[in-house]
Amino acid sequence: MPRIDGARLLDDLRTLRAYGAHGNGVVRTSLTEVDVAARGWLLGRMKEAGLEAGIDGIGNVIGRSPNPGPALLMGSHTDTQPEGGWLDGAMGVIYGLEVARALSQDPETAGLAVDVASWMDEEGTFGICVGSRSFMGQMGDADFAAAGSVHGRKLSDALSDAGYAGRPRERLDPARNPGYLEAHIEQGGHLEGTGKRIGVVTAIVGIRTFRIEFEGAQNHAGTTPMPIRKDAGIALVKLAYRINEAFEAIKGERTVWTMGRIELKPGAHSIVPGFADMFLQFRDPEEERMDRFEAAFSTLVEEANATGPVPITVIPKGAKITPTPMDEALQAHIAAAAEANAPGGWMHMPSGAGHDAMVIGDGIPVSMLFVPSIGGISHDFAEDTADDDIVLGCQVCADAAARIVRGWG
Amino acid sequence: MPRIDGARLLDDLRTLRAYGAHGNGVVRTSLTEVDVAARGWLLGRMKEAGLEAGIDGIGNVIGRSPNPGPALLMGSHTDTQPEGGWLDGAMGVIYGLEVARALSQDPETAGLAVDVASWMDEEGTFGICVGSRSFMGQMGDADFAAAGSVHGRKLSDALSDAGYAGRPRERLDPARNPGYLEAHIEQGGHLEGTGKRIGVVTAIVGIRTFRIEFEGAQNHAGTTPMPIRKDAGIALVKLAYRINEAFEAIKGERTVWTMGRIELKPGAHSIVPGFADMFLQFRDPEEERMDRFEAAFSTLVEEANATGPVPITVIPKGAKITPTPMDEALQAHIAAAAEANAPGGWMHMPSGAGHDAMVIGDGIPVSMLFVPSIGGISHDFAEDTADDDIVLGCQVCADAAARIVRGWG
Repeated sequence: MPRIDGARLLDDLRTLRAYGAHGNGVVRTSLTEVDVAARGWLLGRMKEAGLEAGIDGIGNVIGRSPNPGPALLMGSHTDTQPEGGWLDGAMGVIYGLEVARALSQDPETAGLAVDVASWMDEEGTFGICVGSRSFMGQMGDADFAAAGSVHGRKLSDALSDAGYAGRPRERLDPARNPGYLEAHIEQGGHLEGTGKRIGVVTAIVGIRTFRIEFEGAQNHAGTTPMPIRKDAGIALVKLAYRINEAFEAIKGERTVWTMGRIELKPGAHSIVPGFADMFLQFRDPEEERMDRFEAAFSTLVEEANATGPVPITVIPKGAKITPTPMDEALQAHIAAAAEANAPGGWMHMPSGAGHDAMVIGDGIPVSMLFVPSIGGISHDFAEDTADDDIVLGCQVCADAAARIVRGWG
Repeated sequence: MPRIDGARLLDDLRTLRAYGAHGNGVVRTSLTEVDVAARGWLLGRMKEAGLEAGIDGIGNVIGRSPNPGPALLMGSHTDTQPEGGWLDGAMGVIYGLEVARALSQDPETAGLAVDVASWMDEEGTFGICVGSRSFMGQMGDADFAAAGSVHGRKLSDALSDAGYAGRPRERLDPARNPGYLEAHIEQGGHLEGTGKRIGVVTAIVGIRTFRIEFEGAQNHAGTTPMPIRKDAGIALVKLAYRINEAFEAIKGERTVWTMGRIELKPGAHSIVPGFADMFLQFRDPEEERMDRFEAAFSTLVEEANATGPVPITVIPKGAKITPTPMDEALQAHIAAAAEANAPGGWMHMPSGAGHDAMVIGDGIPVSMLFVPSIGGISHDFAEDTADDDIVLGCQVCADAAARIVRGWG
């Protein structure tokens, strides 16, 4: 079994954190100066590890093993949220680098090939998963030209400033990379809550989001009798309550739903609300259960519209994200490696958040491994993982990578 | 029976509307230039009607009958909401003026005394019912000095600019004015809905308002399992739903309740809300029913806090406003006058909104008469009442005033 170097791994992670460090966290959004500098550092570390590395025309940093394939593709992202955690993305990239180094330094695995990628802009500065979508050929020239940040910076200008403009954009070669492994922090509390240290991901959940609008009639809160009111707020409260009840009754073990935004207009304590809107989002690893949720929700809206008095309109927000199942064979290798390195200390679990693996899964079998997030915190400067867990996760990845690539041999 | 002059009444109302006219509505907030000009015009019309009139140190325009008392005090307000209707307040003042004129011109009623008032700032530019509270001695020097508008204009400066500063502030003399009658537009749809033209008010409803805060835990909407969530939004929806159900079960004929403001923080569709707050307001003509509502509400909050997981805090907003019953004897005179002038065309009803009568009721018996609001609309430029209804309401007031003052003779 190849052995990773835990100190080297943690050193690299801390060095990467210095690019944009903000206390324990990081501010390193895509194609800022500090992000471009971090990509330059990563490129150097890949080359030092003996990888044939480059930064492509979209900013993806990709290091390829000099060994002949098939090569396991490992990666994640080094860009962060505007107020990001230090391991979110970065850990999966440095795991790939360390696994490549560990395998090349062990005579028994030195002939196995691992390629490593840092996908540009997973966090959505210019668009969600821009780098991995480019790698999968999902980003046409028109998408590319139209992409810009909420602050009005065009992607093409940002790439020019970074010095990446005009370079070719790398594309997946499934013959070279018949499988993908992405390690990531869990971003939730399942592992910590159950005392496990490794999560073998079964699927990335699907997501459906809806905006629900209630068109009532604004009126005086003192003089408008209850029977003639068209109170958009009460209509919203009733529907939201019933959705919650209905979802409780049909939920799966991993279903989550969220009504994170509610607005009443005009929103004054002495005025009957004339308009209200809310967002409903639900996620589940199984598409069929997602369909049942949507059917239950639609039935409630139809019932409410049949009885009135406030018409309700449902507007899907964004495209449906279908669940991405993780490859069973890859999962089995990761599970075996987890059991070898942490007997009884791992579990199967879905991913509640989206990842580049979702995009890469469009072309090749994909897999993910999770390590615990302290307190379940993520997308926050306070995000963290115990050093021992970081090291264990990488060791499991190294073992799993060897098993996977050998399995292709 | 004294006969009012409908054309003169409507002319005065339309002339007054010209001060700040905005389409059918009016912009004449307290102590603006146009409001001060309107007070000057009103003062002149009172004097032309033979009243001994003046504007006091708070801006109240008060015209007194030269006849010996007891005098019925009639009035309302000529200031408006920032986007006000043309009759809201103005009608009750001009009714008083027209009733005084009608009584003085009929030899049979010429000896009866009616005093007329326009109370300053009922609509709350500097504080709710500033003029009538001053008249009742409810506004001390400290309140006076502290009063200012949301735009930062001090009441004392506004009174100086108007030329009213330094004048004495008139006070109620119950021996002179043993009763008060305020006519007003209904501001709701009860009269229109039932085809009645006159409302004899039984009580001004009490009002209780609460702010309800929900202290949850903000979290990732994808990775936070339902059982460990402390979703402030769901807690709010559940409580709001149960309040609505409970109030439906115990409501009186005239009870109204409103949850006009709901806020979730951070208010993003993909984040479990960590904090939520809402306002609950309810109104009823009977104090005892208000107590039952508050008890039901408190029980629901206690139950929610007992089961968790989101602690709920209730903060009363403003003072309880207790219902103000209208004087039975005054009501009987108004009802008799309504039946004489519109047989079968009137009804008893409470007032869902607050009025200066609520303040004056602190010292003397008070009464109110309503005329229909077209479409129930008020606090809007579109507020209106049919000319025939305006004239009928004033005729009923004149008849009622004669009955009331004769009753004191």
